[in-house]
Amino acid sequence: MTDFSAWTQACQTRMESVLAEWLPPSSIAPQRLHEAMRYAVLGGGKRVRPLLAFAAGEVTGTDPDRVQHAAAAVELIHAYSLVHDDMPAMDDDALRRGKPTVHVEFDEATALLVGDALQSLAFDILASQPLADNAAAQLKMVQLLAQASGSRGMAGGQAIDLASVGKPLDLTELEFMHIHKTGALIRASVLLGAQCGTLSDTTAAALDHYAKCIGLAFQVVDDVLDAETPTATLGKTAGKDAANNKPTYVSLLGAARARELAQELRTDAHAALAELGPSAARLRQLADFVIERTF
Amino acid sequence: MTDFSAWTQACQTRMESVLAEWLPPSSIAPQRLHEAMRYAVLGGGKRVRPLLAFAAGEVTGTDPDRVQHAAAAVELIHAYSLVHDDMPAMDDDALRRGKPTVHVEFDEATALLVGDALQSLAFDILASQPLADNAAAQLKMVQLLAQASGSRGMAGGQAIDLASVGKPLDLTELEFMHIHKTGALIRASVLLGAQCGTLSDTTAAALDHYAKCIGLAFQVVDDVLDAETPTATLGKTAGKDAANNKPTYVSLLGAARARELAQELRTDAHAALAELGPSAARLRQLADFVIERTF
Repeated sequence: MTDFSAWTQACQTRMESVLAEWLPPSSIAPQRLHEAMRYAVLGGGKRVRPLLAFAAGEVTGTDPDRVQHAAAAVELIHAYSLVHDDMPAMDDDALRRGKPTVHVEFDEATALLVGDALQSLAFDILASQPLADNAAAQLKMVQLLAQASGSRGMAGGQAIDLASVGKPLDLTELEFMHIHKTGALIRASVLLGAQCGTLSDTTAAALDHYAKCIGLAFQVVDDVLDAETPTATLGKTAGKDAANNKPTYVSLLGAARARELAQELRTDAHAALAELGPSAARLRQLADFVIERTF
Repeated sequence: MTDFSAWTQACQTRMESVLAEWLPPSSIAPQRLHEAMRYAVLGGGKRVRPLLAFAAGEVTGTDPDRVQHAAAAVELIHAYSLVHDDMPAMDDDALRRGKPTVHVEFDEATALLVGDALQSLAFDILASQPLADNAAAQLKMVQLLAQASGSRGMAGGQAIDLASVGKPLDLTELEFMHIHKTGALIRASVLLGAQCGTLSDTTAAALDHYAKCIGLAFQVVDDVLDAETPTATLGKTAGKDAANNKPTYVSLLGAARARELAQELRTDAHAALAELGPSAARLRQLADFVIERTF
């Protein structure tokens, strides 16, 4: 097995070129929209969701040439959500991945359409060529991504988040919000990667539990980083949650306990993979990566 | 054959209940988002796209119990586009189907999420149960709807429309815009309805040509109505295109020639269906309906 950082770099490079291939070139009409879509997606991001998809694909022994398209679909859903979340009507953020956000670099109407069109493209990709062992299984993948993105998944989590500004959420309510807002798409990344191959119910249940732990850990670490990292290092506006009086794991638990919680979730994530043997090695490394990341 | 107005009413009633069934109830979290999604979709609209899907389903002799789900998916894409188009960053419209628009009745952030979540729900529906003769054909339906909705379809048309405000478009450019903005989804409605059954290449080509004529005719008539109908009758703000200095068929051709053009497109639409016999009777009636409508 190549070392983890070489593997992540290889996946990220592959992802960049797959996304660049799927996104329409800015030379074809409507040019400005296509230019803005490429601006929103290419040249940045940790690609955590694609990494999870590739790693989960290894569990079912799937060809990464298949998984890369499922990974691209999930990443486009994630990218669209960032574009819309950054808009003035939502988080009103000017900086993302160290660059001006789409509505700042282009304009609000374009940002709205970029998000809309990226979502459509995600489903186009997921339906466009054989990705699973059969077409019926692939339809289930489309359904999974649609549900993870929609009102009972990511978009719903965003709505709960907006409704919670300035409200004293308790830990259960905060977890409920994040299970939707971040967790649903993280879970979809893991399951879609694995579903490109043949996935047994037992393995699916193990991956599901792993994904739940990782999704929450990701958010806990995000809250710690948001509270403690300067904007320049983070590549997005730091300290916004506190400024907006938004409940976070840090505001509810304190930074020390939040860091402990992240470690507990890492342990749980590893435990979930216990039965899967060496095929889950990359997923184990990703659990460590998500908890130990500093940006 | 039941008369046309009884048939449209039956389809509209069926559509309303299918949509009401697919939309999550406002009793489950996130309640406000679900309430706003239902507000955006239910209780109004001519349901032209579902009518086209049902009529096209008759060409391939398909059970309407299948077609209704494809029709719901298309209608949700249409509904999401209206919610986003009405937002201040786009057309900034306060009235739709005689009611306050979603961002006015709720708020901008909710309108943004309503559109996003309606799009996801459309793909969820299209992938959720057997709608075509086999799963591979159904994946192609997902792909068709995604492409019709995305940057080379409806969202792209909207981008071209925004870029055209105050610019002297010629007729070819105006047609290019509408083929994307309205035409792509009208075409998808017709083809998806037919694809719920077994569709030959010849019939698909005929339906494709029919749909192109109807899509353009729909827009020409829209422009005439927008120029000549009072807001109260139209149920949305009238005269906006002229006020925004947007090119329309009426501003380019004058109202009289625009009306003539709509009649020519009706003739073309009928000609496209010539080989299809009695199975295309509803599509013929819909061509007449689209041209003769007064709201």
